[in-house]
Parts: sequence; structure tokens; C-alpha cells
Amino acid sequence: VALEAADAIVATYRLVARDEPMARRVAEEIASGQTVAARPEHRAAVVDLAAAGPGVFRASVAFPRANVEADLATVLVMVYGKVSLAPGIRLVDLALPRALLDGLPGPRFGIAGVRARAGVSGRPLTMSIFKPALGAAPSELAAVARDQALGGIDIVKDDEILPDLHTCRTVDRLAAVREAIAGARRAGAEKEPLYAVTLTGRANELCDRAADLVRRGATALLFSPLAYGISLLEALARDPRVSVPIVAHPALAGGIGGAVEVGIAYGALLGTVFRAAGADVVLYPSAYGKPALPEADARAVCDALRRPLGNLRAALPGPSAGVHPGMVPRIVADHGIDVLVNAGSGVHGHPGGARAGARAFRQAIDLALEDKSLTSWTDLADAPELGQALAKWGTA
Amino acid sequence: VALEAADAIVATYRLVARDEPMARRVAEEIASGQTVAARPEHRAAVVDLAAAGPGVFRASVAFPRANVEADLATVLVMVYGKVSLAPGIRLVDLALPRALLDGLPGPRFGIAGVRARAGVSGRPLTMSIFKPALGAAPSELAAVARDQALGGIDIVKDDEILPDLHTCRTVDRLAAVREAIAGARRAGAEKEPLYAVTLTGRANELCDRAADLVRRGATALLFSPLAYGISLLEALARDPRVSVPIVAHPALAGGIGGAVEVGIAYGALLGTVFRAAGADVVLYPSAYGKPALPEADARAVCDALRRPLGNLRAALPGPSAGVHPGMVPRIVADHGIDVLVNAGSGVHGHPGGARAGARAFRQAIDLALEDKSLTSWTDLADAPELGQALAKWGTA
Repeated sequence: VALEAADAIVATYRLVARDEPMARRVAEEIASGQTVAARPEHRAAVVDLAAAGPGVFRASVAFPRANVEADLATVLVMVYGKVSLAPGIRLVDLALPRALLDGLPGPRFGIAGVRARAGVSGRPLTMSIFKPALGAAPSELAAVARDQALGGIDIVKDDEILPDLHTCRTVDRLAAVREAIAGARRAGAEKEPLYAVTLTGRANELCDRAADLVRRGATALLFSPLAYGISLLEALARDPRVSVPIVAHPALAGGIGGAVEVGIAYGALLGTVFRAAGADVVLYPSAYGKPALPEADARAVCDALRRPLGNLRAALPGPSAGVHPGMVPRIVADHGIDVLVNAGSGVHGHPGGARAGARAFRQAIDLALEDKSLTSWTDLADAPELGQALAKWGTA
Repeated sequence: VALEAADAIVATYRLVARDEPMARRVAEEIASGQTVAARPEHRAAVVDLAAAGPGVFRASVAFPRANVEADLATVLVMVYGKVSLAPGIRLVDLALPRALLDGLPGPRFGIAGVRARAGVSGRPLTMSIFKPALGAAPSELAAVARDQALGGIDIVKDDEILPDLHTCRTVDRLAAVREAIAGARRAGAEKEPLYAVTLTGRANELCDRAADLVRRGATALLFSPLAYGISLLEALARDPRVSVPIVAHPALAGGIGGAVEVGIAYGALLGTVFRAAGADVVLYPSAYGKPALPEADARAVCDALRRPLGNLRAALPGPSAGVHPGMVPRIVADHGIDVLVNAGSGVHGHPGGARAGARAFRQAIDLALEDKSLTSWTDLADAPELGQALAKWGTA
């Protein structure tokens, strides 16, 4: 069966097999097993097979667009539903054709839209995370947000484990943080950072909840697609009321991407799938921090978020986890400026507090863009917060 | 911090660590990392740690119920969100307290309810799967359903990869199959089997779609929670309009459960989580067929579905994949009668067709319950279809 590339969903698998004939048999089984008894126009075909190491192969299978609906759920069930349960088959790449991409939401804002909302051009963006602070009152979190805003952070976000609790309702937190941010602006902050509030709740009410948070002043939403469902991310991205950037958190992703022989590679999962489903920003462990992704995986996520993909907007990569100001030169060298520098303790753990921590990141970015050497930084009298950060965390 | 067991969510992890002090440090990091900066009533604690092999440990961490909403998404984010991204940490068990279970839907029907709907007592239930038949017209699928009904199958289900396509709309398939099943009843079938039609669609419309399918005569729904979202399963199970059993398919589960060192063990994922989220029936690879789960995993899923769990109803285990009539004695010996014998090609691949294939399964069940030996079966003149099946597939 000759599938037009323009019309095929091409899934690439890493296969464990004794030899090439066996690998071919496995690949043929994937193709036929997922489209068995189908009429010709619905049949899948093995389009590529190559050795990729001792006992390891890469096989690409082309599935007709006509087999799925215009969503990711039916695609995932087709290419890695039952297949996932066979041993030694990992989905490592997923190429979606225009015929499908045109029906998927993709990012509503994308990199350019997030930049416009955050008021940032010509440099990487910065994001800081509230320490989870479970049990903290909204007013306490608001005080931290104020510090971050005064330090010049571009996006403030909740921790993903901070849900809507009786002791700290999401709407109360949102109101308090918005007020604190506005107060910081009046007190001299260069601008009001976006605030990505954690979106939680029941699936059938989630779009309404998101719309309500936007109505109440949320300027971004933090969402964990793998805990709630990829299809809910799609629904949020399609809902015109959800008129703010969606920041996707990788919670649970290690359980799917973290093995070698099974699962879905991070690039396909956090890159292609998250972007196609509508994430404007995708957070993922960087290759530098702790926990870290393998460098090739981190790069694959970033590439999948930014490369041309039908008419979909590019999404902003947010390499995270253990990021401190000393890593900024490497982050900028590896990503260019279309990247979100995201830090938790790298901001809050600064000897001078969260405001100084935020300033240190902004200073590091400015200097990285001027291509100043790391050594020169510690001498810089006009960047004392950065000096303190480098003294504490060093460089990377 | 002393957590009352009744109020704690206890997550048990498999940890890879050099020695016990290191394993303890990892466990403490899980506990503190997910509740850092929290007030005492929100802090997690390591409650158990034991060696489980060379360089492998089992650690249990108790998280306060007060940290999460009454849903599984916030639980999963807390116990295995960021944690999943650290190397060598697998979630192997999840114990949910009454305080949480009472707020979760659980199965609306459960084993007893599914039995009542299917009109089956005192024996295992049988389910057969439409061959995917992508491209087949509703009338063609209906003819297959008629054969299955005439053969005495209790539940007929769609293949999970058969979505709502222009060439075969779900509502048209449903209407045709329902009519065929009614026709089979008039032609002498002992009863009308339930028909689990595949539920697909956009997240924000999924409950409405499910309600519409029920209104149109669907007597069960087939749903893939890991492709769409666990929280959507919860929403379906909570929706009073979705007044039919939900059959949960394990699509994608191998990508989460199939590794050793990372991911979520099948018992926790397909057992505890699927049941608590509202699955009435859970399909999973048996320990006998192909692909097969490791025997301990298959048993863990079954146990988690049927053991006492707060006030939640038990869910019906459906060991699947490569099941043929010769396996029935082993399935009954291993599971007792509260089990669903689910087969695809084991029904359709019968030399005498789907009707004979269905009859062979029913005959195998009747004989297994009479404790007849396998050898005696092939002699049985009054079970010719079973004889043919055993001649083709043998026993297990």
C-alpha cells in the first residue's frame, strides 16, 4: 500500500529484536495488528526499518489519516494503544500530517503570543515557581509573588501540587496574587508578570473553571495534561474563553518517557503531542539540573516545540528543575533566546531572597546576551545579586 | 509527623539505590520534595522502608488526604508527578484512605451490576471483540454481532481502534448492531448481549456524547482512559446520564507499566486507579496470551479490582489478548467465576465462524465449572464447537 506522506501519520518505534527479519516481523505486526481486516484505504504499512545498535532497530509505520478523528487520543490509541503492551516496543517519534494538524488546536499564543502577553522581546523569558507552601494562606503566597515581580520575573507560576484546597482556594490565591502583582508594579516593578495559576478540577467542569479563572484575572494557566488527559488540554486550547497562555507541566511524564525499551520518547510526548494539543509553554527537566533529562531527549523536546509543524504555532520550551543563574549562559547557548528560564529554589534560595533571586536571573540573561565570560560576571559591581548567586551555586 | 492511616494516601515505591541509607534519602526526598515548605498538617512522611533485592528497595510514603482534591489527578500529581522524572523510582502500590475513597466515584455497576445487566449469574462472563474492520460498513459489523449473539456471548464490544469515522459513524454502527442483536434474539439467541460501543470525541463533549449513545441504545461503553484522561473516566462515572457499565481499555498502559525501574505498576494503574475512577470492567492482558502480563502483575490487577476498597464496588477483571477456549479452565482456576473471558480471534478465528467460536467459549465455561478434565473435553460429542477450538488452539 502506497501512502501519500502528506496523508500519513508516521510512527517510529524502537524495537528490541534478535535480527532484522524478526524486527521486520514485529513492525509488520504493528502495522497489521492495528488495522487488521481493514479495507485497503485503512491499512498501515512499514515504510522504514534500520538497525540502531546491537539487537535494536528503528521501524517507521505509516497509518492512514482516515483511521482517526481530529484529535490526539485516537492517534495515540492507534499507534501505541495495544502496541504498548507488547514487550520491547517504544514509540520514539510521531510525525503528524498536515491533513491531521489542520484539525488540531496547537498553541493559541505560541512563542510570539506569550512574548506579547509578557511584554518581553529580544531575550529569554524567566519564570519562577512558588514553593509549594501547602497550608500557606493566599496572603503569604501573595507576598512571595510581590518579591518575584519586584525582581523582574516575567511569569510567576504556582507549584503543580498546589490544588484548590479549602484552606487556600484557587480563586482566593488568584485574587491575592493579582493584587500583590499590581502593588509591585505601583512600587516600581518594571511590569506586571503573568501569573500561571494551577488549573484543577473535574473534567466536565474544567473548561468552565478555566474560563472563570480567566474572568477573575488569571493571565496564564498551569495544567498537567498527563494527569488530567491530553484531550482536556485540547479542549482548553479550543475554548475561546480560555484566552490566556497554557503552561503544560510534565507531571507523570517520567513514568512514560523514563525507560529505554518501552514508553513514549520525551520528544514525541512533551514535544509533538503537548504542542499539537495546545500547550503554549512546555516545562520539562533540562539536561543540566536535577532531575535531568538525557541531553538528546531535552533537545528533542525543544526541537519538537519550535520546528515547523503544519500551521501550528511554535511553543515555548521551558527547561526546568534545579536551574540557577549560573546555568543561564549554557541555556542561552543551547536554545537561543526563544526559551523560558524556569527556576524554583534558584530564585527563592538566593541569599538575598526571591527578589534578589529574580534579579540575578535577569542579570545573567543580560550578560549572556552580551556574551560576557563567566569569569567577568563575578567581578561585575553592577550585578551584585548575580555575584551572590554564582558564589552559592557556581556555573554550569 | 504521625499520620493516621485512615487519613493518609500511602504510595509505595520501588527504588534503585546503592544501599539503605541512600534509599532512605531518596524516600525522604520524595516525601519532602512533594510537600516542601508545607505546614505540619500537610507534610508527608516515610512510613516504611525495606530491602527488596540487590540494590532495590521498597519505600512507603504517607501523604495527607488534605493535600489533594477529591479526584485522582491531584493524587497522581502529588505521588508521582515530579517524582516520575527522577531516575529509578517506580510507583508500585497506591493505598487510598476512606476519607478520599468516599469522594471518588468508583464503579456505578461493579461486578453485581454488570451481571444483572448481562443476565449472567453463577459463571464467568464472556466478551467478544469485533475485528477492527476499519472501512467496514455498519451493516457488515452488525452481521458479525448477530453471529456472536447467536453463539451466546454476553458482551459484544467494538475494537478500541474503531473511532467515529465518516465512513462508519458510531451512531450508525450502534443502531445497526442493536438491531442485529434484537434480530438474533428473535431468531433464538438466549438473550441480547450487551454492546460496548467505543466512546470517542472531544473532552468537553464526551459526557454528552456518552449520554447520547446511551439514549440511542448503547448498553455499555468502551473507553480508553489513558488516551483521553483518567479524570474523564471519573466524569463519565459521575454522570447520572451515563447509566450503563463502562468497560475500560488498557490502551497505552504498557508505556507506563511495562518497564521495571520506572512507571506505575499495572496493579496500581489498571487496578486501583481505574476502579476508583469508575471502571465497571477493566480489560488487561492476561498472564497466558500474547501479549501477556507477568503473572504477578495480572494477579495484582485482578486483586485490586475485586478486594475490599472503602465503599467502592468491585470491578470485573477482563484478562484478554490471545485468549482461546482452551485457556478457560486455567482462567477459572485462577480467578473463580467473577471474571470476564474476553476474546477476539479466539471467537472470530474459530473454524466454524464467530457463532461457533462463541459457543465454544460457553461450552468451555460450563465444563470448567463442572471440573471436567481437559482430556475428556475432546471426547464430548455434545460440545463439537469446543472440540474444534481445542483442535486448533490446544489447551493452556
